[in-house]
Amino acid sequence: MRNITRGELENASLSQLKEVCEEIRKEIFSTVSVCGGHLSSNLGIVELTVALHRVFDFPKDKIVFDVGHQCYPHKLLSGRADRFRSLRTEGGLSGFPKRAESGYDCYDTGHAGTSVSAALGIAKARDLQGESFEVIAMIGDGSFNNGLIFEALNSLRILNTRVLIVLNDNGMSISPTVGGTSRILSDAKHGSALPDEIRLFEQFGLTYMGVCNGNDMEDTLSALRESKEALKTQSVLLHVATKKGQGYPFCENAPCETHGISPGGACGQEYSTALGEELCALAEKDRRVVAVTAAMTDPLGLRGFFERFPDRAFDVGICEEHASVLCAALATQGLKPYYAIYSTFLQRAFDEVIHDVCGQNLPVTFCIDRAGITGADGETHQGVFDLSYLSLIPNLSIGIPKDIGEFRAMLRLSWNLDSPFAIRYPRAGAAGKVNDIEIGKFEVLHSTMSDIILLAAGERCIQIAQNVLNAAQKDGMDFTLVNARFLKPLDEELLASRTEKTVITLEDNIAVGGLGDAVTRFYRNSCKNVHVFGYRDAFIPHGNAADLSRKYGLDEERILNTVRGAYARR
Amino acid sequence: MRNITRGELENASLSQLKEVCEEIRKEIFSTVSVCGGHLSSNLGIVELTVALHRVFDFPKDKIVFDVGHQCYPHKLLSGRADRFRSLRTEGGLSGFPKRAESGYDCYDTGHAGTSVSAALGIAKARDLQGESFEVIAMIGDGSFNNGLIFEALNSLRILNTRVLIVLNDNGMSISPTVGGTSRILSDAKHGSALPDEIRLFEQFGLTYMGVCNGNDMEDTLSALRESKEALKTQSVLLHVATKKGQGYPFCENAPCETHGISPGGACGQEYSTALGEELCALAEKDRRVVAVTAAMTDPLGLRGFFERFPDRAFDVGICEEHASVLCAALATQGLKPYYAIYSTFLQRAFDEVIHDVCGQNLPVTFCIDRAGITGADGETHQGVFDLSYLSLIPNLSIGIPKDIGEFRAMLRLSWNLDSPFAIRYPRAGAAGKVNDIEIGKFEVLHSTMSDIILLAAGERCIQIAQNVLNAAQKDGMDFTLVNARFLKPLDEELLASRTEKTVITLEDNIAVGGLGDAVTRFYRNSCKNVHVFGYRDAFIPHGNAADLSRKYGLDEERILNTVRGAYARR
Repeated sequence: MRNITRGELENASLSQLKEVCEEIRKEIFSTVSVCGGHLSSNLGIVELTVALHRVFDFPKDKIVFDVGHQCYPHKLLSGRADRFRSLRTEGGLSGFPKRAESGYDCYDTGHAGTSVSAALGIAKARDLQGESFEVIAMIGDGSFNNGLIFEALNSLRILNTRVLIVLNDNGMSISPTVGGTSRILSDAKHGSALPDEIRLFEQFGLTYMGVCNGNDMEDTLSALRESKEALKTQSVLLHVATKKGQGYPFCENAPCETHGISPGGACGQEYSTALGEELCALAEKDRRVVAVTAAMTDPLGLRGFFERFPDRAFDVGICEEHASVLCAALATQGLKPYYAIYSTFLQRAFDEVIHDVCGQNLPVTFCIDRAGITGADGETHQGVFDLSYLSLIPNLSIGIPKDIGEFRAMLRLSWNLDSPFAIRYPRAGAAGKVNDIEIGKFEVLHSTMSDIILLAAGERCIQIAQNVLNAAQKDGMDFTLVNARFLKPLDEELLASRTEKTVITLEDNIAVGGLGDAVTRFYRNSCKNVHVFGYRDAFIPHGNAADLSRKYGLDEERILNTVRGAYARR
Repeated sequence: MRNITRGELENASLSQLKEVCEEIRKEIFSTVSVCGGHLSSNLGIVELTVALHRVFDFPKDKIVFDVGHQCYPHKLLSGRADRFRSLRTEGGLSGFPKRAESGYDCYDTGHAGTSVSAALGIAKARDLQGESFEVIAMIGDGSFNNGLIFEALNSLRILNTRVLIVLNDNGMSISPTVGGTSRILSDAKHGSALPDEIRLFEQFGLTYMGVCNGNDMEDTLSALRESKEALKTQSVLLHVATKKGQGYPFCENAPCETHGISPGGACGQEYSTALGEELCALAEKDRRVVAVTAAMTDPLGLRGFFERFPDRAFDVGICEEHASVLCAALATQGLKPYYAIYSTFLQRAFDEVIHDVCGQNLPVTFCIDRAGITGADGETHQGVFDLSYLSLIPNLSIGIPKDIGEFRAMLRLSWNLDSPFAIRYPRAGAAGKVNDIEIGKFEVLHSTMSDIILLAAGERCIQIAQNVLNAAQKDGMDFTLVNARFLKPLDEELLASRTEKTVITLEDNIAVGGLGDAVTRFYRNSCKNVHVFGYRDAFIPHGNAADLSRKYGLDEERILNTVRGAYARR
């Protein structure tokens, strides 16, 4: 799509603005079809974004996108239309706002709930520095449930500044938005709210305006103009109703399914399917089993569980911390909670994992999906820190299955475990077999008399290790290959019994604080040569997962060279 | 104090109940005077707790204390009065609720905002298991600002269960409670709230009741009885006004100062005083400098800064996550934010440190107080994880000053740093000198020709190292002693240049993932002997800090033996 200038937008007639919207919609649809990405959320917000660019003066005015997955129309209107087809590919446009990418992106996002705090900070800095521009937080109703938002609202009067919060209410947060906050919003949207209920927002120091139809250009333009006027004296919350997927009936009708699109689908089977099946089987035989999610029922494979065991399935909205405490409390009463969550989002509940679950040594099982490099979503979505931040927590066991069969085995194992357990796995992989496993026991996959042992954790690394092994064998070399499926407890018995001089570790995680460091610690002062392969100390941008993995540290050629080096030293 | 039975309480007349209150008050006052602990918050809640024990049937009914520092009257009424004088001493009663200590404590707390989530989890488990008891969350107005509380309130309708939330509103959260939520509560307390404002709570699925005078026994008893009745059909929020420090005029008049009492005062000078002075000096010369705290102005030494630079000082209430995002956003606009916080509470903002501050590589300085073993507050307050969870984050520098002079030097250094910086330090220590320092450069404190080098990080460890050195020298041994004042960047130049065969590291942190692991990683495959001293992989209970430190891993005798062993091997 061609770049549209601010001048063009300013001078456009209403019908021309509508044409721009159609152009944007088509561009998003065709690009996401190829590159993957967030579809329905961006389709729903087109008119609203065009109207914002007409009424406000970006980049002088600033807009913070909560989560940020709905920034595509904004990117198309800020000089990036000609590069939009590079979306989510290495070196191309990010699917999220990135300050490094454009002056129109003032704040990087990816996780939910940060927008109002960020907008307040930017506005306060403006005031302190005597500058003059407007600051907007654009937030969906799903994120509006997040505790951070209320912390920021609580702060409005303290900070004594002015921001415009545009609440993009489409009733969805990947899964439909749930809970009390959404009820307040829904009442307002459907005209059944008493005016005084809205005073909640006024008590926080916000003027409530709305509800406007965010898919109607005229209505949206006039609402934004009124908001801009009101913003001169006070912070404003503009409540905008939009339709997720607007303009494409099959998206409108299936907003969950078309929230995120994978280009060409996932490789292999999905771990989430296995999670759903195994939890249903456990729940069938044991009434203590309950499942908890933070607004991710479908992507985590829990739809079936929610349908079969509605009393024991809890979607608490985008509230990762609350979900963690809830699990701990359920466990104090003898229940067996399974908390399914993406690796990167569990960071949000770090304190609760320590303070509530592990501090009380409660049998909560964390099912950590999208672990390792996930690829196209970039820095904020790579699951590459979990092995490090989990291994420092006392009482916690950590499992890293080598395939879906082993994942099933770990879930069955978790059922007998009377302490906290984290199982981390990628989105998709091989089916594998379900063998009985014991907590803290590695598996020797290939045994030789060579003086080299390679310990690999997780499906990606086992695969890389197999490739390296094949290449090594072609060159007349060999090494023992071990599936290091537990980071905690470490298989100290196996490690102590090994006599190889060269030890190589592979993990789909940063190299600091994970498996490599644990093995290095174990072999401290043993005079073994330990070679650790994991990701380097950096935030990993978007791109193809396999390419990024190689580039940031898991390079088969380099690992093979390490094997060669060990042979050369003999 | 003698143990009071449930029967006695049930049969007591009103005047007898008041006598029990006086007895409890005296016991708390005299015990805290000796053992230290939380004073004013407990004095304020005596009548309310006695009334709760009269109206409810503990431990069949369950009560979760938010933060938990206000549980002393509850402990005195639940069979622990005879042991109360052991408060906060090793092996004695904890200053916080502990399931392991008594069946009357149903959920361990220490950090703010978990009580409503926990109560909901316990209540939901009750429903699922067909049991019958009441669940109460007791929460102060300070914690009520915390985002977790709103996540839990949002969940009330989803979980479809019943809890009683007792809001103990004393207008304080160590510092006075601030922000929009407190305004809503304050309006209600002073009778100026429109009834419809209270409908906020009803929209969440809560019946609002109150305000009762929580220091008046009759009023409190009748309010609790009404709440218990209402609880039969729906969740209830009972708003109780109490006076922090009630009964002791000097506590009532100085609730901040008497919130927490140290037995005999701190040893040495306070780092917080230096923080206040240095930040004022920086702010004086640079208008970009701003300070942020989450309800801890006084304990962090920021009172003076708040008075001198009110426009650039932000207390956002107990909202550690929001404070972190706010700092990131202020920094995007060219300001220099300093975020002062206790080590254990920064865990709550882990995701925001990664996602907002370090992900955008912004020059925010984290001033992390109460790092290392803090002692008497126990598991939830030890600052022993920060080196581990911070060192895994890209872009972050980590400083560990050896004394207050070096802390001042690091703060001055931070001013020139254009990236995130974390400085972690204990509560109190030696004055020291302010020498110029360079980022990532260690300091050699004592240099010898011996084949042993000891790297120590932070004041406690430098002190231990000096003691070991003195003892070693008495035995005719010696070693080089290095102040390892930066964990990131590590002083690789110094490390690479050292030829000693034996390397010993000391850190006031768990041994997993901190300095010892970083040094081990650096010396991997060098055939050096690296000996790491830090705390073992466990939650560390309350007790004397020095004793705990020795017991959990920093034992001078063991370190000296390591030196002896190295000499023996020569």
